[in-house]
Amino acid sequence: MTDNEEHHRLVVAGTGIAGLTAAIYAGRSNNDPLVLEGDEPGGQLTLTSEVENYPGFPEGISGPDLINEMKEQAEQFGAELRHGIVERVDDGERPFRVELSNGDILTCDAFIAASGASARTLGIPGEDDLMGYGVSTCATCDGAFFRGEDMLVVGGGDAACEEAHFLTKFADTVYLAHRREEFRAEDYWIEKVQEKVDEGEIEILRNTELLEIHGSAEAGVDRVTLARNDAGYPSENLDDPGTERVEMDVGAVFVAIGHTPNTGYLADTGVELDETGYIQTQGGKGGNQTATGVPGLFGAGDVVDYHYQQAVTAAGMGCKAAIDADGYLEDLADAQPTAESEAQAEADD
Amino acid sequence: MTDNEEHHRLVVAGTGIAGLTAAIYAGRSNNDPLVLEGDEPGGQLTLTSEVENYPGFPEGISGPDLINEMKEQAEQFGAELRHGIVERVDDGERPFRVELSNGDILTCDAFIAASGASARTLGIPGEDDLMGYGVSTCATCDGAFFRGEDMLVVGGGDAACEEAHFLTKFADTVYLAHRREEFRAEDYWIEKVQEKVDEGEIEILRNTELLEIHGSAEAGVDRVTLARNDAGYPSENLDDPGTERVEMDVGAVFVAIGHTPNTGYLADTGVELDETGYIQTQGGKGGNQTATGVPGLFGAGDVVDYHYQQAVTAAGMGCKAAIDADGYLEDLADAQPTAESEAQAEADD
Repeated sequence: MTDNEEHHRLVVAGTGIAGLTAAIYAGRSNNDPLVLEGDEPGGQLTLTSEVENYPGFPEGISGPDLINEMKEQAEQFGAELRHGIVERVDDGERPFRVELSNGDILTCDAFIAASGASARTLGIPGEDDLMGYGVSTCATCDGAFFRGEDMLVVGGGDAACEEAHFLTKFADTVYLAHRREEFRAEDYWIEKVQEKVDEGEIEILRNTELLEIHGSAEAGVDRVTLARNDAGYPSENLDDPGTERVEMDVGAVFVAIGHTPNTGYLADTGVELDETGYIQTQGGKGGNQTATGVPGLFGAGDVVDYHYQQAVTAAGMGCKAAIDADGYLEDLADAQPTAESEAQAEADD
Repeated sequence: MTDNEEHHRLVVAGTGIAGLTAAIYAGRSNNDPLVLEGDEPGGQLTLTSEVENYPGFPEGISGPDLINEMKEQAEQFGAELRHGIVERVDDGERPFRVELSNGDILTCDAFIAASGASARTLGIPGEDDLMGYGVSTCATCDGAFFRGEDMLVVGGGDAACEEAHFLTKFADTVYLAHRREEFRAEDYWIEKVQEKVDEGEIEILRNTELLEIHGSAEAGVDRVTLARNDAGYPSENLDDPGTERVEMDVGAVFVAIGHTPNTGYLADTGVELDETGYIQTQGGKGGNQTATGVPGLFGAGDVVDYHYQQAVTAAGMGCKAAIDADGYLEDLADAQPTAESEAQAEADD
């Protein structure tokens, strides 16, 4: 470690629910966590205007408010929050070397990857402006707000099918728009959707793409503009005579074209990632469920979980990661006296 | 199903954090959960006067208050809470048959076991007879009854340290007896205890075990017999010359040596329990982490988790169980039209 490197006992990457919960627990365990806040402070939850299902808030709480409460709680227990994008983690030496995008280098004895996943979006007009006001990337979070409305789900994979299926609980009709003829979802989900189609609850719009979302923050989503072409991918063939534009009234739009876990910075480490980039943790029973293949490096939240992806499940995993990291750090301290304890030992002589 | 049996789509056993979180999610997914509240309503968390580490409450919240918020939230989403002790679950037929201790029989399509864990006791002379008369497993509940007395806490984990620390509010001196030299509590609690040791309010008795509690139901606890051996575990080495017996006057004894999961009612089912009674769930990645070996029967919270045992980890698992149960119930509904939908189909003719 050179002099211009800053050392921390524990670095937590991410200030979403998982990272902040890890910070609360790590702070309380005297592990002085440095928590790095990336470009989406607060993570996916901040995309949800009203969180109704985080246990403990019967009146609901806004995503940003819940995040702020957790930040305050983490800081009370001694966590330090700071902006920082992790560019690369070097696990070839200990302490770990953490390179930030601004050029800063940190070192740490343990590292919790809680950098979340980012929902892919379409990049179409209205999408950004209405995100949280009728446009959502999470049916489970927001579906219940639009009971009785017509809803549009965009996507052709498992997530889109699952969201469309789930939303039939609440929607008048769910429209599922996919840019191609064939869905790439697994048969299971295609069949589930087909059952709902047969029941008249889902209508599939094949070879259809969403071009624009209309509405306002005050009134929510009002209608959408779609493009359709039997050859597929209509937005790439807008001038084609076979492409028709359709206006449709819907009360909500769910964009379900996938998430990408933010784990690129682990590519050079021994941490095992699946093909999408999700961190493979130990799981199982008992302790160390959040451990990766690299001792001292833990994963929690949407970098690990591609299925449940709820605020409270991320919180649970963040807590586990902090407890696992604490165990690791205790063992480390027992094995190798720290500089501080060496200095203390000298002073005691 | 006979006429005097009451059918529910989903029954949740337990109104601790795990059960209530499952109820919130299950209610929100329109699965109309019936939530059975046992003899320890609210579960272990209600024994905690101040919860500081449940994410979202920087000022802390009392255990009972947090439970009440979650109950309200679950009820808002349509969960029905009712007193009921599950005596036995019969998974030999579907729907499941759930026998309650008052003789009532319920049937349900899916069942979430979130019945928590109960405090373990020592099994020593005097303990049973004086339970509730000076012997307690809950400092928060009973500490205030013994103001000004000397008190003995037995145990070496977080709970024992927390109880000892808490009892300094009331006690003359708190004695904390642990059968080994080292405490397995987290640093946070070891330090909190050490502060009280420095202030002369707690005295730690290492390598010490409680052999007998003396007193009467009328007059309460009078004194205790302890054994001490520098090698630890003195009760296993009573004849060892290094073991000394000590009589000590105390006015109350708090036993804080862990918990046993409340899963006896699953003994006759296909659910796999470990030797202590913890439910073996599927775990792993992706969905169905809370599934047991019996389809439709799920486990969450302290009936599963013998390691982390935090409010927020229990909540995370309760959420997963509700999502897993929802998937199961959807599949079931797709596979077998319910009586209700058949009646509807007839009415539609």
